[in-house]
Amino acid sequence: MTGTSPQPLKVAMIGYAFMGRAHSQAWRTAGRFFDLPLDPQMSLLVGRNPDRTQQAAAQLGWSETTGDWREVIERDDIDVVDICTPGDSHAEIALAALEAGKHVMVEKPMANSVAEAEQMARAADHAAARGVRSMVGFTYRRVPALQLARELIAEGRIGQVRQVRAQYLQDWLADPSSPLTWRLQRERAGSGALGDIGAHIIDLTCFLTGERFAGVSGMLETFVSERPLPAEASADGSEHNGTGLGGRSGEGYGAVTVDDAALAMGRLSSGAPVVLEASRFAWGRKNAMRIEVTGSLGALSFDFEDMNVLHVYDAGEPGRTAGFTRVLATEPDHPYVQAWWPPGHGLGYEHGFTHQVVDFVHAVAAGEQPTPSFQEGLHVQRVLDAVERSSAERSTWTPVETDGDPAPDPTGQALHGDSAVPSVRENSRTSHARQNSPTERS
Amino acid sequence: MTGTSPQPLKVAMIGYAFMGRAHSQAWRTAGRFFDLPLDPQMSLLVGRNPDRTQQAAAQLGWSETTGDWREVIERDDIDVVDICTPGDSHAEIALAALEAGKHVMVEKPMANSVAEAEQMARAADHAAARGVRSMVGFTYRRVPALQLARELIAEGRIGQVRQVRAQYLQDWLADPSSPLTWRLQRERAGSGALGDIGAHIIDLTCFLTGERFAGVSGMLETFVSERPLPAEASADGSEHNGTGLGGRSGEGYGAVTVDDAALAMGRLSSGAPVVLEASRFAWGRKNAMRIEVTGSLGALSFDFEDMNVLHVYDAGEPGRTAGFTRVLATEPDHPYVQAWWPPGHGLGYEHGFTHQVVDFVHAVAAGEQPTPSFQEGLHVQRVLDAVERSSAERSTWTPVETDGDPAPDPTGQALHGDSAVPSVRENSRTSHARQNSPTERS
Amino acid sequence: MTGTSPQPLKVAMIGYAFMGRAHSQAWRTAGRFFDLPLDPQMSLLVGRNPDRTQQAAAQLGWSETTGDWREVIERDDIDVVDICTPGDSHAEIALAALEAGKHVMVEKPMANSVAEAEQMARAADHAAARGVRSMVGFTYRRVPALQLARELIAEGRIGQVRQVRAQYLQDWLADPSSPLTWRLQRERAGSGALGDIGAHIIDLTCFLTGERFAGVSGMLETFVSERPLPAEASADGSEHNGTGLGGRSGEGYGAVTVDDAALAMGRLSSGAPVVLEASRFAWGRKNAMRIEVTGSLGALSFDFEDMNVLHVYDAGEPGRTAGFTRVLATEPDHPYVQAWWPPGHGLGYEHGFTHQVVDFVHAVAAGEQPTPSFQEGLHVQRVLDAVERSSAERSTWTPVETDGDPAPDPTGQALHGDSAVPSVRENSRTSHARQNSPTERS
Amino acid sequence: MTGTSPQPLKVAMIGYAFMGRAHSQAWRTAGRFFDLPLDPQMSLLVGRNPDRTQQAAAQLGWSETTGDWREVIERDDIDVVDICTPGDSHAEIALAALEAGKHVMVEKPMANSVAEAEQMARAADHAAARGVRSMVGFTYRRVPALQLARELIAEGRIGQVRQVRAQYLQDWLADPSSPLTWRLQRERAGSGALGDIGAHIIDLTCFLTGERFAGVSGMLETFVSERPLPAEASADGSEHNGTGLGGRSGEGYGAVTVDDAALAMGRLSSGAPVVLEASRFAWGRKNAMRIEVTGSLGALSFDFEDMNVLHVYDAGEPGRTAGFTRVLATEPDHPYVQAWWPPGHGLGYEHGFTHQVVDFVHAVAAGEQPTPSFQEGLHVQRVLDAVERSSAERSTWTPVETDGDPAPDPTGQALHGDSAVPSVRENSRTSHARQNSPTERS
Repeated sequence: MTGTSPQPLKVAMIGYAFMGRAHSQAWRTAGRFFDLPLDPQMSLLVGRNPDRTQQAAAQLGWSETTGDWREVIERDDIDVVDICTPGDSHAEIALAALEAGKHVMVEKPMANSVAEAEQMARAADHAAARGVRSMVGFTYRRVPALQLARELIAEGRIGQVRQVRAQYLQDWLADPSSPLTWRLQRERAGSGALGDIGAHIIDLTCFLTGERFAGVSGMLETFVSERPLPAEASADGSEHNGTGLGGRSGEGYGAVTVDDAALAMGRLSSGAPVVLEASRFAWGRKNAMRIEVTGSLGALSFDFEDMNVLHVYDAGEPGRTAGFTRVLATEPDHPYVQAWWPPGHGLGYEHGFTHQVVDFVHAVAAGEQPTPSFQEGLHVQRVLDAVERSSAERSTWTPVETDGDPAPDPTGQALHGDSAVPSVRENSRTSHARQNSPTERS
Repeated sequence: MTGTSPQPLKVAMIGYAFMGRAHSQAWRTAGRFFDLPLDPQMSLLVGRNPDRTQQAAAQLGWSETTGDWREVIERDDIDVVDICTPGDSHAEIALAALEAGKHVMVEKPMANSVAEAEQMARAADHAAARGVRSMVGFTYRRVPALQLARELIAEGRIGQVRQVRAQYLQDWLADPSSPLTWRLQRERAGSGALGDIGAHIIDLTCFLTGERFAGVSGMLETFVSERPLPAEASADGSEHNGTGLGGRSGEGYGAVTVDDAALAMGRLSSGAPVVLEASRFAWGRKNAMRIEVTGSLGALSFDFEDMNVLHVYDAGEPGRTAGFTRVLATEPDHPYVQAWWPPGHGLGYEHGFTHQVVDFVHAVAAGEQPTPSFQEGLHVQRVLDAVERSSAERSTWTPVETDGDPAPDPTGQALHGDSAVPSVRENSRTSHARQNSPTERS
Repeated sequence: MTGTSPQPLKVAMIGYAFMGRAHSQAWRTAGRFFDLPLDPQMSLLVGRNPDRTQQAAAQLGWSETTGDWREVIERDDIDVVDICTPGDSHAEIALAALEAGKHVMVEKPMANSVAEAEQMARAADHAAARGVRSMVGFTYRRVPALQLARELIAEGRIGQVRQVRAQYLQDWLADPSSPLTWRLQRERAGSGALGDIGAHIIDLTCFLTGERFAGVSGMLETFVSERPLPAEASADGSEHNGTGLGGRSGEGYGAVTVDDAALAMGRLSSGAPVVLEASRFAWGRKNAMRIEVTGSLGALSFDFEDMNVLHVYDAGEPGRTAGFTRVLATEPDHPYVQAWWPPGHGLGYEHGFTHQVVDFVHAVAAGEQPTPSFQEGLHVQRVLDAVERSSAERSTWTPVETDGDPAPDPTGQALHGDSAVPSVRENSRTSHARQNSPTERS
Repeated sequence: MTGTSPQPLKVAMIGYAFMGRAHSQAWRTAGRFFDLPLDPQMSLLVGRNPDRTQQAAAQLGWSETTGDWREVIERDDIDVVDICTPGDSHAEIALAALEAGKHVMVEKPMANSVAEAEQMARAADHAAARGVRSMVGFTYRRVPALQLARELIAEGRIGQVRQVRAQYLQDWLADPSSPLTWRLQRERAGSGALGDIGAHIIDLTCFLTGERFAGVSGMLETFVSERPLPAEASADGSEHNGTGLGGRSGEGYGAVTVDDAALAMGRLSSGAPVVLEASRFAWGRKNAMRIEVTGSLGALSFDFEDMNVLHVYDAGEPGRTAGFTRVLATEPDHPYVQAWWPPGHGLGYEHGFTHQVVDFVHAVAAGEQPTPSFQEGLHVQRVLDAVERSSAERSTWTPVETDGDPAPDPTGQALHGDSAVPSVRENSRTSHARQNSPTERS
């Protein structure tokens, strides 16, 4: 809203299914509620099927279409490539785009393997040196209540992080007659509940605590091993990416080759224990992404099914009036909220995507690294990989790979073991002293 | 309330701290709200300190006192021994009591080691052959909402059990300046959060599903390694068991030798995955014993902090009006409730103890095995042990011991592994057929 | 639990239905958890039907029985008369008992008419001068969360009371086929939802705010005008008081002569508006006694269906972390709780009755007025009466009677009217100054 | 998204503050998620201050601006006039627009007086005869959970409506130092909490039940009678309508001339009692628009602070598993939802506005009356007026005006009075029979 109009930022988006629709709404809306330093223009939509792509472009508001994503790379006028395809094409497209000097936003999970993700992270580092930006689409970071949680933890409001418990529960696969989509095929999706929704709570754990995972113990489960093939793959609009499932023969059933539920126990770099569960079989839970972070001075708790609320516990409050406070994160001083509506007039799912565009555009304009970076995406990929490897080896503790220095080897038994990981243990004298420090809470 | 008065059932209770007070209220109240086939009489209270024991007996309503639990064993007029001491004395007392032909109720966890528990379970079997009954005090089984949950699962209302997620969260140790009690000493308490509260959710998982644990992967954590010794051990009324911590006058701090938090992933005998967390450091959670059981046809969810409520999800309900139903388990047709108050007039913590006495007295009178039996208590002990052993060995999958036949070896990776455990996996054809079966839901 | 045994306090109870059972549990339990200055003894139970009375006495723990309440009055050894009959006999029994020098506890509502209640209040004043105590059984005052609410308001934590909104919702009459009990007959019960449950929220409003009602506008409704007569009146154990409904002939249906739902708007003595609803037709609400008090500096909210919780809003908290705090009123420093269980181990409905006995016995021993007094009970009766009169006169504003000075005449239109009632209106200058006062919040 | 492009529908919007921003988002978004029969074009924005209007147009996406709303009326190319100004200009603009043959959408409350509203309703009827459409912006009707509630009631799922209880609680005026805006001035806003937010729950009551109000008893309150004038009126962006408060430079305080809280009891045309409260002083309640409708066979409950949820109670469910079901109204078969996101990915406040545009455009294209009509808006206005008049006359029962036939005179005392209003009373025989009718529930 400044006097001079901002420069245009021309965007091409690849894929137009669920994620493509959400991203389109974000590109369209961001500048209407936020002052942006650049003016995003919805220039080019990419999809295989020409008719459906044109139809999608008309509805979602993209100016042009093409059937070949390589055209995006070759066109000089495209500034940003927004990748909304299934995971198996992320790496190839992102590498080409970065190489061509285009800023990249890529949906999560960043890739289908650690090797791909490593390649992408290296490319992102090189591109950054040339002023080309890249970001992974963990949009839940931009829910105001979770952004608030991050701020409160960073300010020390809950003290040192002691424990994280997170669940991501859905039930859309609990009915064994629901069809086999690409999300149930390992070669397309990489993994199942683990990578699809587990990736979100892994990323959120890192985002909220500012830490990384040191290691994990994992366990995977597939409840339904065969499912009916979609009656007509191409009609699967809500999940379709423009390419189809491919290779299915005449039979009516196909094998599920990913996990339906994933469990993990882990430790952060500080040694703090984490417990994770991702399931698409949790009847009655529609999008229950829940995370609770317990610290030495308090706790925070969130459930996406009530997404405008953060529950805050302050252990410094006298017991007589202590309790979890239901903070409706819709006040003007909550992150992003001032641009929207008055208190209590809640936001919805797609607002996280709009905030993501806002932050991405600001980072591009300022020449700064947007978050989460491909390095952060790579870390999530490594955690996913460690969970899978642990699961395949009797849940044995599996360190998460790092770059450069060898991974520490935290044992699962902090009490009696010899851990290379910084311990969260404390004795009462030091911690008590810290708790009384007036500076810590102010 | 029958015409002829029931025969007396003379009870001796050992220990009068927290558990002793709850048991006393139960013995005193059971016959006032329920018709009992025997008339429990609060005959003898045992505690080391004579003055305090007499004081406790007067307040709690016990007729006599003694300082030596062996007197209970020797007295012919005592029918029931109710053991409310710390875990390190359970085995010795219970074995002597059973040997002497006295019915035994013992607080959980049943023992401090698997070896002790095995001895107790064997003794209980022998005693049962002579008509002597024994029971472990997992009182949460008798909360009406949880009893209702058990019934609904047994009736097939949620179909085949697919997943269990359970937490037991408290925060009374989160302050590092809170003192070192016997519950923090391995030799007295056996373990920490694991055995104290984790035992409850292990037992509840078995109770609700009717299954046992096949194996686990565990992880323990001690956050605060040293704590101040109680100012005056003997004044620790709320946790005191009549014997005191002893021998620890001079020094100011002592080592915590148990876990503060315990995490575990496990599988039931059916192969269904379970995730468990027990923590006494979860700021803001006062007694949040939460359990959610997801089946193929629905789900049930419970939180003890709202103990009169069971949330029920029926997947057979059309999506338009489906959701978790908040069942206030205070209706006359809910278990135990008819004896109490009208709908909505909730019960409290101690009612579970009263119901436990009711069921115990009925079992004794009928010459039947009360539940949970020492065999069930032994199973919980073995799960606790497996969690500890796994935790000490990099969280590696650890089968839970069984009697007779060797333990199965379920791998943590059901999808790609070779599991000896009956799988919960299904393919859509068979399960779909089952789901449509009209008989299953009626 | 002092060295010398407390003196006995011999109690006679009249009626043994729902309320009689709750009172018995309270008399039996109070001394087991609280140190009492006198030792209540459950001496004499009164009921018309000899067999059932004896049966009740055996189950509830009363030593003797009689069929005539006048025997209670005549016996010198009875110290306390506890009146648990329907409202039509309260006045006669209470007057006789006070006259005879016996302390009186009477169930709510205190009487069936204002005239009776005035007589009782006068008698109570005279008796008090002779050291004889009396109290009305509004037991919800003794729920710890509500006692906490009272304390917080009295401490000024929510500032000046601005508004009260209260509901008491049940659904046990919503089914038109449920039978006609004495609670549906005006001559026995006085009124319907209004006096049965509306009386509780009227009393609680006074208790929490420390104010009285100046006037009301009321509206009553009877949804079901005829109901089946109970199959066998005498078998109606849960509602039966030992005397029977009487006068019913052969027909199958009888007229409902009380309200099913009562609505009212009122003003407190300070002018603060109050809105009240009592309904026994609110499907799905089992015992939803809800009250929210909004002040100038915060608010408190309570629902009996989650009776261990008080929600507290502190307007002094910065907006970023403000919200209702869910205080689980089970901490040792919450009212009455220290005598019971650890945090999070909730209390139930009957605990309010136990606390009532504790306070009553303390008041008797100390020679002090227990609360609520008959004067307070009279005020509730006058509010009930004003609601009924207003309802009969097109909901016109109806002042609540007072003793001595004529009732003020608050108009329903504070803004433009001339109100004799102290206004809660304020202008920003004065109230702003007050809000900033550092002493007020510390 | 049909083959041929839909015809354009050119919109002019007057005012660009809070409501203008919400409407702009709706006009911009509707066609992106829904197939519309006409293509809304955001043509012309009207505001007094040229600079700010142009700035707003640029941000909100309007093509042109003007400073005079009469230009809108005169231009032939404008099809729709969307009125987002304060209530005092609604009538004049709407009458002119309808006269000029333009479809009109007007924000609620429709007018500042019954006289204005009557004039508008007549004009709307005349316009409708010429194919010109009009609608009042009660957007909460288009929240999916509330639309679902309407459908369930219309289907008979809760039987006959017996009671409605509704609250609209906010706290943005609870701080007496918050400034005097136009919403606090009677000549601009018409009334205070009553018309601003009370209007919503009055309209929702009618919408959900399909009934109208027969009469009311009201009570108004102004807690803070003077407030500071805005530091700089023109900077009041969030509430500013482009015209400013004006004429108020020197003095520091101004009088509040509207109500801060409004209470009412009423009866619907069926006789069903309703209780209403609107308050902008309810500390801690940010946008708690709550409504519960109790019927003879069940109940529905909603709170806008958890806007994606409808709680449903079905009295036909056996007591053992009955309870309020938390329906997350985000399933594909919930109203409007299929166009958006998968289950559990909630919608926000502005989605109601988008749905309103969708329905309005469909009605215009189909030549049908959109709802709520000006007739419905007039009824709300008459209820507001009746509440004010009752409040000024000691809360005396005040019939709500109707057209043509004289208003019925429902007495507040249904039980003993002679009511001209159809009674909701029933006797058990007839209602029981109805309840058992198999057709009613299927």
